Amino acid sequence: MSETETGYDCRFLADVVDEGRVSFEESRREQYAVDAGPHDPRTPDAVVWPADAAEVSRVLAAANERGVPVTPWSGGSSLEGNPIPVEGGVVLDVYGMDEVSVRAEDLQVVVGPGVVYDDLNETLAREGLRFPPGISSGDVATIGGMIANNASGFNAVRYGETRDHVRRLEVVLPDGRIVECGRDVVKTSAGYSLKDLFVGSEGTLGVVTEATLAVEGIPEHRRAALVTFSTERDASSAVSEVIRFGVRPGAIEYLSAPTVGILDEYDPDLGLEVAPTLIVELHANNRGIDEDVAFVRDICEDNGATGWNAAAGDEMDEVWRARREAYTAIRTHREGLEPVLVGDVVVPISRYPDVVEAVAEASADLDLLCPAVGHAGDGNLHYTPIVDRDDEDEVSRAFELNDRIVTRAIEMGGTATGEHGVGIGKRKFMEREHGAALELMRDIKEIVDPNGIMNPGKVIPDATE
Amino acid sequence: MSETETGYDCRFLADVVDEGRVSFEESRREQYAVDAGPHDPRTPDAVVWPADAAEVSRVLAAANERGVPVTPWSGGSSLEGNPIPVEGGVVLDVYGMDEVSVRAEDLQVVVGPGVVYDDLNETLAREGLRFPPGISSGDVATIGGMIANNASGFNAVRYGETRDHVRRLEVVLPDGRIVECGRDVVKTSAGYSLKDLFVGSEGTLGVVTEATLAVEGIPEHRRAALVTFSTERDASSAVSEVIRFGVRPGAIEYLSAPTVGILDEYDPDLGLEVAPTLIVELHANNRGIDEDVAFVRDICEDNGATGWNAAAGDEMDEVWRARREAYTAIRTHREGLEPVLVGDVVVPISRYPDVVEAVAEASADLDLLCPAVGHAGDGNLHYTPIVDRDDEDEVSRAFELNDRIVTRAIEMGGTATGEHGVGIGKRKFMEREHGAALELMRDIKEIVDPNGIMNPGKVIPDATE
Repeated sequence: MSETETGYDCRFLADVVDEGRVSFEESRREQYAVDAGPHDPRTPDAVVWPADAAEVSRVLAAANERGVPVTPWSGGSSLEGNPIPVEGGVVLDVYGMDEVSVRAEDLQVVVGPGVVYDDLNETLAREGLRFPPGISSGDVATIGGMIANNASGFNAVRYGETRDHVRRLEVVLPDGRIVECGRDVVKTSAGYSLKDLFVGSEGTLGVVTEATLAVEGIPEHRRAALVTFSTERDASSAVSEVIRFGVRPGAIEYLSAPTVGILDEYDPDLGLEVAPTLIVELHANNRGIDEDVAFVRDICEDNGATGWNAAAGDEMDEVWRARREAYTAIRTHREGLEPVLVGDVVVPISRYPDVVEAVAEASADLDLLCPAVGHAGDGNLHYTPIVDRDDEDEVSRAFELNDRIVTRAIEMGGTATGEHGVGIGKRKFMEREHGAALELMRDIKEIVDPNGIMNPGKVIPDATE
Repeated sequence: MSETETGYDCRFLADVVDEGRVSFEESRREQYAVDAGPHDPRTPDAVVWPADAAEVSRVLAAANERGVPVTPWSGGSSLEGNPIPVEGGVVLDVYGMDEVSVRAEDLQVVVGPGVVYDDLNETLAREGLRFPPGISSGDVATIGGMIANNASGFNAVRYGETRDHVRRLEVVLPDGRIVECGRDVVKTSAGYSLKDLFVGSEGTLGVVTEATLAVEGIPEHRRAALVTFSTERDASSAVSEVIRFGVRPGAIEYLSAPTVGILDEYDPDLGLEVAPTLIVELHANNRGIDEDVAFVRDICEDNGATGWNAAAGDEMDEVWRARREAYTAIRTHREGLEPVLVGDVVVPISRYPDVVEAVAEASADLDLLCPAVGHAGDGNLHYTPIVDRDDEDEVSRAFELNDRIVTRAIEMGGTATGEHGVGIGKRKFMEREHGAALELMRDIKEIVDPNGIMNPGKVIPDATE
């Protein structure tokens, strides 16, 4: 180990990467100290921008020999401190590895980890195709980060999460070996699914340098509807029934009444009724879609819907505006108040009403303003207590709220995180969620990364924590 | 180790399981010497029928201390010797662990590993639900075996393989620890996906004692069509286009011309035209299905289809008869000839014509009768050289054919096995398919099962092989 009080000696990098691909300058390093979440910054000792897998391999092999931490980085849009180099060392920025090769005839695309989600979809659209998990931060998030966190969003309810689309990964292991995990096929039963081990491992086991992803055709027909309910429970019961009765919506989003209230203040032109609200989008390749719309409407009305505003074509944009503007409205809601965390629990669909209620109760109990939105069709709920960050007591109540909700979600058979990953922020829940299985995760980390250089301090809590 | 010339001393089992749950009798043990494939028999030294996870745990802990091999067993319908106890020791038969608990409101079912696929679907059907991978041996195969081999079949093209439906597994590790892998939710980003490590590991890492599976609604509308083509390439090009243009059929099956010839001889009442044939089934919950049927017909005709026979309702059964009877027709085709292996390669969809052609060429070159059928929508091809088992040269040519086809499939980016698993028969292809990643699989096996007691001799070839 060559850690000093001022950090790790990373000069070895100059010997293993091309000129201009490494920097020790503070102004460059500081850009890699935080992600988009609220976690404490930490500046790395060096930044490298590798050109390809071979260069990644040389960096890892050299860092591994010296016990220097390496933290992969791409879009930096994560929320849980996932790529913050908490132990210093090297940040390995793969943003420049952004090649895209579409194999339309196989419904696949081969991508580098640095490709931005929206850019990929722009390229795919030229062939009538789409990589569909539907994340909110698609303008900045990269495929590498999506694989690292098993990210997903709006459209996962119909199309699945990132994991469901990963067919093959090229991965550089901590000791520099380059391995291929998985094959360019729809299905395989040939041995341990190593690709699934790397998806969601947040760069703690190696660096993904290339991926084959399955893509989908862009649906020919789409419809959207904004539906209001008189109670939160009615809204979430409607979600549960829509899913159960076999309609697989392209998206089904939930906005709590407080969230709609904030939106209404933010942009009165939206003309929203302040009530628990769902936005449902339907996809199809044939005109049966109108039957689906009628079916969803029936289910919503059976569950006490008080308003139904459906749209097709360009007007769908109007329906979605409420959801799109939600986070900005929340962030700017009150001068000096900001979200200190974004909750990301998932529960079994039938428990969605319960977790929605738990957030409302905890907010009232802890005297917090806590709007909630969510990918309801997946049982995924986001909640954002907005607080005065200078008010220690309020901040601590916000974290207390998160502890309560995560604990309740886990009790319901749910998970601490549906799409943001564990990073720093959710490590403390891993023992509760995984129990004895956590030991097996530690064993795997130990065998793949015996020197513990890959993104240390993330995902798996130390045995002593 | 307590292995003697006559096997392992397994008397310790009597101390760890209830009376009547262990047998050392030869007549009982012999029932566990072979699966449904052609691999050499090996009789275990003892058989246990554990009642629950706690009993499985005691058996594994005791066997692990003594270094005695344990091979899990359930339906015994595998084809690659997957559950044959090649090193003797204990067969652990979980067939009796067959509890089923439907959670319709969550679109989930909790099952024991011994539940038979068709029985599960019969239970689910009462709630309008279905576990949909669609395997051919559904009357005998169990969920435990399906998880072990990541099995799938007819309907995977629309609904995915077993892996895609596994939400949570209860697993007993080789040292007896009982762990929960995954959660009862649609999606999670909370740490390493251990459930995906156990799915497809063929009992080499532990024993699955319970699973939460995602299920689907039974589609309201179904249509089927039997389509003939003048060339194999036309048929497989049609498959590739149907998938590409966004219709996701419930099933899309391919039968080569020689296969149809054999079927025609077997059952002339089928009234088949001896030509390359597809059976396409479409599923929908609305009347848009007829649009899909017309669209598929257009694509088939664009690709030179020579015949189109569509059906709905009970008549669909007639369309499917050809596919259902195919394996029996092949097995009984000529007195004294039988399939010596069932090929199971998968290639990228666009290469389906090439792999179909490769089978035809290799059959001609090696002078073998080799009918082929396949789940064409997944790029999955099964081929069955039928030979005189007493003719060593013919048997060896059949294996040569398989070597050639698997090698070609891997060159195309494909896999040696799409749904049958590796077992004994496909181990020799793992180095070629996985390259350096195989070492990582060995490392994982070593850390999870350091004494190597779990189903030894399967999946991963020894480093020296």
